[in-house]
Amino acid sequence: MTTIPVLLGDRSYDVLVEEGSLARAGELLARHLAPRPARAALIADEHVLSLHGPRLLASLGGLACVTIPLPQGEAAKEISVYGRVLDELARARLDRGSIVLALGGGAASDLAGFAAATYLRGIRLVGFPTTLLAQVDASVGGKTGINLGAGKNLAGAFHQPSLVVIDPAVLATLAPRERNAGFGEVLKYGLLSPAPAILARLESQAPLEGPALVELIAECVALKADHVRRDEREESLRAHLNLGHTFAHALERAQDYRGLQHGEAVGLGLIAACHLSTLLLGCERPLADRVRRVLARFALPQRATFDPDAVLEHMGADKKRAGSELRLVLLERPGAPRVVPAPERSLLLDALAQIS
Amino acid sequence: MTTIPVLLGDRSYDVLVEEGSLARAGELLARHLAPRPARAALIADEHVLSLHGPRLLASLGGLACVTIPLPQGEAAKEISVYGRVLDELARARLDRGSIVLALGGGAASDLAGFAAATYLRGIRLVGFPTTLLAQVDASVGGKTGINLGAGKNLAGAFHQPSLVVIDPAVLATLAPRERNAGFGEVLKYGLLSPAPAILARLESQAPLEGPALVELIAECVALKADHVRRDEREESLRAHLNLGHTFAHALERAQDYRGLQHGEAVGLGLIAACHLSTLLLGCERPLADRVRRVLARFALPQRATFDPDAVLEHMGADKKRAGSELRLVLLERPGAPRVVPAPERSLLLDALAQIS
Repeated sequence: MTTIPVLLGDRSYDVLVEEGSLARAGELLARHLAPRPARAALIADEHVLSLHGPRLLASLGGLACVTIPLPQGEAAKEISVYGRVLDELARARLDRGSIVLALGGGAASDLAGFAAATYLRGIRLVGFPTTLLAQVDASVGGKTGINLGAGKNLAGAFHQPSLVVIDPAVLATLAPRERNAGFGEVLKYGLLSPAPAILARLESQAPLEGPALVELIAECVALKADHVRRDEREESLRAHLNLGHTFAHALERAQDYRGLQHGEAVGLGLIAACHLSTLLLGCERPLADRVRRVLARFALPQRATFDPDAVLEHMGADKKRAGSELRLVLLERPGAPRVVPAPERSLLLDALAQIS
Repeated sequence: MTTIPVLLGDRSYDVLVEEGSLARAGELLARHLAPRPARAALIADEHVLSLHGPRLLASLGGLACVTIPLPQGEAAKEISVYGRVLDELARARLDRGSIVLALGGGAASDLAGFAAATYLRGIRLVGFPTTLLAQVDASVGGKTGINLGAGKNLAGAFHQPSLVVIDPAVLATLAPRERNAGFGEVLKYGLLSPAPAILARLESQAPLEGPALVELIAECVALKADHVRRDEREESLRAHLNLGHTFAHALERAQDYRGLQHGEAVGLGLIAACHLSTLLLGCERPLADRVRRVLARFALPQRATFDPDAVLEHMGADKKRAGSELRLVLLERPGAPRVVPAPERSLLLDALAQIS
């Protein structure tokens, strides 16, 4: 069992990474949660629930657990679903000592996390992320949220989990495209990490499965945990984790969220960010090419079809901007990110031309 | 200007109490908020908005402010209203540096606070409470929330305001019954305070208006601020503020929230709690009579019509219970509260008989 502590004072928790850990959930909860909860709610998208729910539930022993299914994908993050989940938590009479078990990818985790953050003004949350993207990113750090008509993730809360259980074995049940998309986010960690381990694993041809995959996931989680520890509320350092994401969010939005998967969009955003990093911060020229080679290894797209003006407009409207001045995370070199004011429009268009 | 600091580390803020302060809102925001916001949303119930909105808005100077009206009373706390308010905040393009101005009584404050707590995972909130109840209680301490089908305040967040501006002059516009009801909550502070000032003011016949009312409000706020400072998340000490409230919530629920006003229910709950305090903790026998005399001064009810069994059932289901064991806040003497396990059913019925 690989254990990564996320150190946040009285909100500290452990992230556990081990193949087969989902089937040991009950034992892990008993070992890591004090005081022990008397009731739980398992919140999961209906597809994931059918695949992994029975194994998890069977492991819970005497813990009374109600199951709350969510629609698949982003539909889970609508405010009507949030209201229904709160009502079901109340109907199941969960109290302040109860826990929410969030099983699924980023969308289910975001919704379940927001419900846990706000039911009775906050009860404990345990994450069981089932996509690579959620395992390396969404499950750690306490960001929860729902979508509004005006945009994604516009409402939410910071609510740290009490425990995260990552079982890389479940990734085998993902569609290849979804599994591969997660490596877009892993690559972001490779570019941000001051240590070369993550990027080296992605650039080697050694197969990423079994213990190597466990280690890779743990390395990403440890890097994220370090950022979260130093800047829980994303007031400074944690913003580095947005490398590639200002482009990615705008690309996804310009396609009305119907084209690229998030991890695919992040991969494209990394190409654009590395291109600008070379132009503006003197980062090594071949970095964008290294990014392209890793993306190719995981069959991730290197180009997409979009309206550059729409993307620029959505970048300007990105909720991560401070005040009205758009900022970007770029790299001086791998492992050395810097937040800089966005350059003039022509340079942003040039960066978009690299991926269109 | 009376200023009460609420000391919570980097979440500290001031509560300002002064007659006429609402018309100086812009100046007070400029003096107390750093960095200065560029945009604001004024969220208020439509009746309060028509009474006090123009004066507040006129004082804001160059601060761009959108107005979001709420339905009156508890209808403001429905999840559909919450969703609409979030959408309007997004449509007005409020960003992370923007502020929510919450103008109104407890319900409007709770809803506006929850919207501020969760929009973009939390933006700054300034409270302008307009009822006595909200001025002495709801506006300080960071509790925000909405109602679910299963019960009141079942979802919410702790989100401390950045500033609270209390203008006792607005109380003159309240209906006499609503103004008087606030004194039920003031009396709670009188019973909890280790200093005799609040109870003495309530038991004297000196008129409670002008500077005396400003001082009384400031004394209640200071006592609440001290509880919040020592126990922000209501894990121990802050629970003392629930004196009388376990009875009050159950009474309100047994009447389907259509009978007693909250402050009236609190007054009745205080009689019941003082009666049990004498039986169980040896508290001075006349305390319940002193409570009755104060209630009489403010024309607050000393009896109500309810089904005792329903009230007991609702007390058992009160969300404030820890685990499944009901606890009550009682008094050893004025200023010396203690949390004790609820006594046997017959004693609870005896306490209810005092107010039925």
